[in-house]
Amino acid sequence: MDLEFLQPLIKQNTTKIILLVMDGLGGLPRETDNKTELEAASSPHLDALAKDSICGLQQPVLPGITPGSGPGHLSLFGYDPIRYQIGRGVLEGLGINFDLTENDLAARGNFCTIDAQGKITDRRAGRISTETNQELCAILREIKIPGVEVFVETVKQHRFLLVMRGANLSSHIADTDPQEIGKAPLSPEATHQDAAESVLLVSQFLDEAHRRLQDQHPANMVTLRGFSKKPNWPSMKEAFGLHCAAIAGYPMYRGVSTLLGMDVLETTADIHQEIDTLEQHWDDYDFFYVHVKQTDSSGEDGDFERKVKVIEDVDTVIPRIRALNPDVIIVSGDHSTPAHLKYHSWHPVPTMLYSQYCRKDAVEQFGERACLQGALGTRFPAMDLLPLALANAKRLEKFGA
Amino acid sequence: MDLEFLQPLIKQNTTKIILLVMDGLGGLPRETDNKTELEAASSPHLDALAKDSICGLQQPVLPGITPGSGPGHLSLFGYDPIRYQIGRGVLEGLGINFDLTENDLAARGNFCTIDAQGKITDRRAGRISTETNQELCAILREIKIPGVEVFVETVKQHRFLLVMRGANLSSHIADTDPQEIGKAPLSPEATHQDAAESVLLVSQFLDEAHRRLQDQHPANMVTLRGFSKKPNWPSMKEAFGLHCAAIAGYPMYRGVSTLLGMDVLETTADIHQEIDTLEQHWDDYDFFYVHVKQTDSSGEDGDFERKVKVIEDVDTVIPRIRALNPDVIIVSGDHSTPAHLKYHSWHPVPTMLYSQYCRKDAVEQFGERACLQGALGTRFPAMDLLPLALANAKRLEKFGA
Repeated sequence: MDLEFLQPLIKQNTTKIILLVMDGLGGLPRETDNKTELEAASSPHLDALAKDSICGLQQPVLPGITPGSGPGHLSLFGYDPIRYQIGRGVLEGLGINFDLTENDLAARGNFCTIDAQGKITDRRAGRISTETNQELCAILREIKIPGVEVFVETVKQHRFLLVMRGANLSSHIADTDPQEIGKAPLSPEATHQDAAESVLLVSQFLDEAHRRLQDQHPANMVTLRGFSKKPNWPSMKEAFGLHCAAIAGYPMYRGVSTLLGMDVLETTADIHQEIDTLEQHWDDYDFFYVHVKQTDSSGEDGDFERKVKVIEDVDTVIPRIRALNPDVIIVSGDHSTPAHLKYHSWHPVPTMLYSQYCRKDAVEQFGERACLQGALGTRFPAMDLLPLALANAKRLEKFGA
Repeated sequence: MDLEFLQPLIKQNTTKIILLVMDGLGGLPRETDNKTELEAASSPHLDALAKDSICGLQQPVLPGITPGSGPGHLSLFGYDPIRYQIGRGVLEGLGINFDLTENDLAARGNFCTIDAQGKITDRRAGRISTETNQELCAILREIKIPGVEVFVETVKQHRFLLVMRGANLSSHIADTDPQEIGKAPLSPEATHQDAAESVLLVSQFLDEAHRRLQDQHPANMVTLRGFSKKPNWPSMKEAFGLHCAAIAGYPMYRGVSTLLGMDVLETTADIHQEIDTLEQHWDDYDFFYVHVKQTDSSGEDGDFERKVKVIEDVDTVIPRIRALNPDVIIVSGDHSTPAHLKYHSWHPVPTMLYSQYCRKDAVEQFGERACLQGALGTRFPAMDLLPLALANAKRLEKFGA
């Protein structure tokens, strides 16, 4: 739904909404008993909540599309993930907790290997160690460019973050990574005339990087892509009238929450401590986003049993959440991460929305197949959840007379 | 669906479609037996029709959005309620049966109270009686403005309708209601340059109103909002090739039907008399819209039992409808009005579409939860119904070769 459409309908209320995101929640059935991770988990409290909720399966972006964490979360937060795209440079910054300002131009950097003719022979420089990366970043960090401040930060292996801080920088710059070996890194090109000066600054950086890395091996050059600036999007407060808190242990999720103007609360990545944080701040906010990372990481490790255990652990905190008596509780994931695939996937995500007014359906178990019978539908846009939460929290005016 | 897309596919036929709108049909379960109004009603004929139909739950506008009667009906009539929005001034005119022409500029007026400094102290003038309103409208009706004819009509309590009739009037004028107390009414401002002259005329009216009401209490001033003109939309005949009749007792619904070029038949708000009207005119039209108001009004009164009774009463006319042997029957509502909420709500509306060719599903009862199992889906756009009706009435050509 367009935020512009919703805007005039927003009204204030004292009701409270909790969005519990179990990262990568959706799964695929294992061979032995044909149950998914969520179906295999013993989760009586999630099932009881499903009984009091409307259930369904949401599609984070579009059919068949496997979302990254950014789009998967944006849609849960009510933002169209196609319209609101986070640039890769900014995303890398969020992922390492770099405090981006509106004067920052961010790019994702790769260390690479070039030959004597300047042609790339390895786009990832043999996936150098993170320690080597740190040494190389220390070298690059010494590059001085008049008029801008330069930050070079290690991400992992061959990946780093470049940030230039200065006035009037533009992100309209094409990637310098040619995306294939045997070609030289591309010169940065402006994709809009407002980037003419920024391109010169980036060129200077690349020339200096080339000079300073030429005796290194295998990482003797860099490529840059995803030039982007911190987006200036409506905050959750502006878009939905909600005073929001994010309770998430990992930098990426804290970063995305910051982009939307949420207050990011001090907490850990342990769900029990996250619920401690929720309880402590219960009076301070309208909307709480609580993030569980381990469902995703166990799925990415292909560890079906561990993912089951994580879900069972999350199940034990549901009574603490319900004891707070929230007006609306949503439980979902930002995407599926089936242990069977060891990766994010496109499969719709089991979802429930609890409220006193939800007009509950007949679903009595929180699982992929049980949710197929739910009132929310079998492949509904994840973006629908936030307006539905607002409605159930009596935070929307009537449309038209 | 865009009317432009459908247009070239429309073909003529002698088939007949009935759309029975039970206003505010959808409900919420009561505590005693967990049944909604529709589920609690003994409605054997609706259930039998459901057995021969495809069923589902429609969403009138968008997820979580509570529709007014205007958008709720437009979507049932196949018009995108977001693209086709009726201005509030026009809507007030429709509601009191004012015969708007294309030269009319309509606005919703509120009597309000201002203090000696001209600041609003009560935006609704203490909700004066409708009788007082009539006296004040008689005063305002004496205002003469050169070049236009002025109509001032009582709506109810503090609400009135202002219509200016003249050449080249524009509705691009911002509301004069500041929407909060402690502020003076705003001067009318053009939101588009074509409204420069109209703004002067509205200003003259407001100056005169101020002068003539200054000794009245508590209603000593007015605010105006929702400036609008009768829209120039494709009629149901133009859009769908249907010669349409509206059978509705209340002015608002008769008015909306008029906007879409339907013939509004003489009838009452009694469903039995409405069916008399339907029978009398059966040979004269392709499409009949039949409106039941009391499902909504009993819901708004919070009277669960009365809403059940209304549904049971409507149930008794279903055999008369079926006896006419219509090709397509749709039964739905323009929105939900759960007695539990005493107000329009966002909940999807139980719906069935009967035709000999509908490929009926397994639903055997017309109710919120039974319809979740239906072939139409759990939250399908209400706008889909009219194209489906046309298809089932064999009034659509194939798309593409």
